[in-house]
Amino acid sequence: MDIQARIQLAMEHHFKEVLVAGTPPTLKAAMLHAVFPGGARIRPQLCTAVAMVCGEDSPLLTDAGAVALELMHCASLVHDDMPAFDNAALRRGQTTVHAEFSEPIALLTGDALIVMAYQVLLSLRGKQPQCAGYAERLLEMMAIVSEGVGAPRGIVAGQAWECETKVDLWQYQRAKTGALFSASTAMGAVAAGANPAAWHVLGESLGDAYQIADDIRDVIGHIDLIGKPVGQDAEHGRPSAAQALGLEGANAQFKHLIDTAAKSVPNCVGRDLLRAMIFKESERLVPQQAYQDYLKNQQSSQVSTV
Amino acid sequence: MDIQARIQLAMEHHFKEVLVAGTPPTLKAAMLHAVFPGGARIRPQLCTAVAMVCGEDSPLLTDAGAVALELMHCASLVHDDMPAFDNAALRRGQTTVHAEFSEPIALLTGDALIVMAYQVLLSLRGKQPQCAGYAERLLEMMAIVSEGVGAPRGIVAGQAWECETKVDLWQYQRAKTGALFSASTAMGAVAAGANPAAWHVLGESLGDAYQIADDIRDVIGHIDLIGKPVGQDAEHGRPSAAQALGLEGANAQFKHLIDTAAKSVPNCVGRDLLRAMIFKESERLVPQQAYQDYLKNQQSSQVSTV
Repeated sequence: MDIQARIQLAMEHHFKEVLVAGTPPTLKAAMLHAVFPGGARIRPQLCTAVAMVCGEDSPLLTDAGAVALELMHCASLVHDDMPAFDNAALRRGQTTVHAEFSEPIALLTGDALIVMAYQVLLSLRGKQPQCAGYAERLLEMMAIVSEGVGAPRGIVAGQAWECETKVDLWQYQRAKTGALFSASTAMGAVAAGANPAAWHVLGESLGDAYQIADDIRDVIGHIDLIGKPVGQDAEHGRPSAAQALGLEGANAQFKHLIDTAAKSVPNCVGRDLLRAMIFKESERLVPQQAYQDYLKNQQSSQVSTV
Repeated sequence: MDIQARIQLAMEHHFKEVLVAGTPPTLKAAMLHAVFPGGARIRPQLCTAVAMVCGEDSPLLTDAGAVALELMHCASLVHDDMPAFDNAALRRGQTTVHAEFSEPIALLTGDALIVMAYQVLLSLRGKQPQCAGYAERLLEMMAIVSEGVGAPRGIVAGQAWECETKVDLWQYQRAKTGALFSASTAMGAVAAGANPAAWHVLGESLGDAYQIADDIRDVIGHIDLIGKPVGQDAEHGRPSAAQALGLEGANAQFKHLIDTAAKSVPNCVGRDLLRAMIFKESERLVPQQAYQDYLKNQQSSQVSTV
């Protein structure tokens, strides 16, 4: 089974376990809408891939970690799309939760998904078969995901930096995106009983690369490519690497981060596979052809203006 | 040290541990505003009292459980006060978080407090001294608080029932308020290594009583008494026991639930103390003098209309 199919199965399994009879029907529908069909599921992929190359001895732990990361990510999207923030009508090519249901339901959906991330990990409590240090691994995984989401340096802190007048771009982006990427590689390592520190640079550089890619796509993209309106950073006055470094500077930085990520993969059985996955993902994030086309169009429109 | 002082110290300690340097300043201020000064801290009191009468062997676990419960409660208040729900300007006699800061900050504050509830419990990971089954107790406490907050039957589900057209009043109230009360007694028991099942009726009846008291105060209260505007249930079309049973029916049901709660306390060293605490709390929840005064005023205004 490939990683994507494995993640999809795990997601469905845990939703069936949590959203049992008695859940308010609209909340249930909204939670499903927020999570299915998914985007690239890059964070769970990363967690799963790292666990696998670390020689995972408890696939249940890996899967629960992967699902928890995706739920936290989806929760942040639901809240970020709300009128108080981006007021976005579209996400992944479909209506956002508040647009499809209502603002109160979107607020509760985000809350419920955050709690569900922990419920998913906690559902493994006492479950057999257990590997060495099972309870301690579960606790460490929950601590890692909390760090990626909460105060002082997780996603929520990243979004809160948008409300400050004085913002450090890298601190902001590290929190808003990088933190959950770092959590993804660390979760995979801990799920497999390995040392998370060896995977820190991979998570951190991929997170930085992903955020810069988002900024680049927000400039060069069109709605078909990214499934949501473009030009949002400029419209909402959000700090953006594409603005701070210029588009070409941002693209160079993006490529550098991908190289750093690939080089950081520790010596292990699946090293080449993981590196190939990183380069493939990099092309999905910023298709270099689309980037070149955009530059060419800009130059020709400047020429025609002259 | 009395229970209230103990809870206050524990709250302050955990805030210092989580909101370290690097937290976005407005988010930090809003999180503190949402939690200090507190209300009655009834959930942490309940958790602490149960742990104590169960002969607690790890006060750190009790305190962390108590703080986690209060953070979840405060998070739900912050989100519930937002324009998408109650649009309340006042809470505990001071401005609500979204009114004091902004809607985005209120949204993030609720999210951050939910995650912090887990961070508080997780901060004890590996901390000395450890009692028997330390890691397992931590995991069970997190599972209990998750059940009290998330889908399918926690606070979030309770709030989501407000968005449904067909609602069972008891299912709604059990979720919106009862769930976190049940969690409070269960957390206290588990923190002390005791069986949570023996404390289930206490938590459940107190939770039901508390919700009915809220409904009664919403009718008879004035803003000085409850620190927020009255008549909110009728204004927002929310299901209410005071409406469903009539005011006198609701008060009779309230007293019955307090009796059930007091009788349910298992035979233990602190039984009498705990029962006295319950009756004292009952008088704070629905001051019977204020209730009688309201009835008298109603009757005399009906007479004068005739």
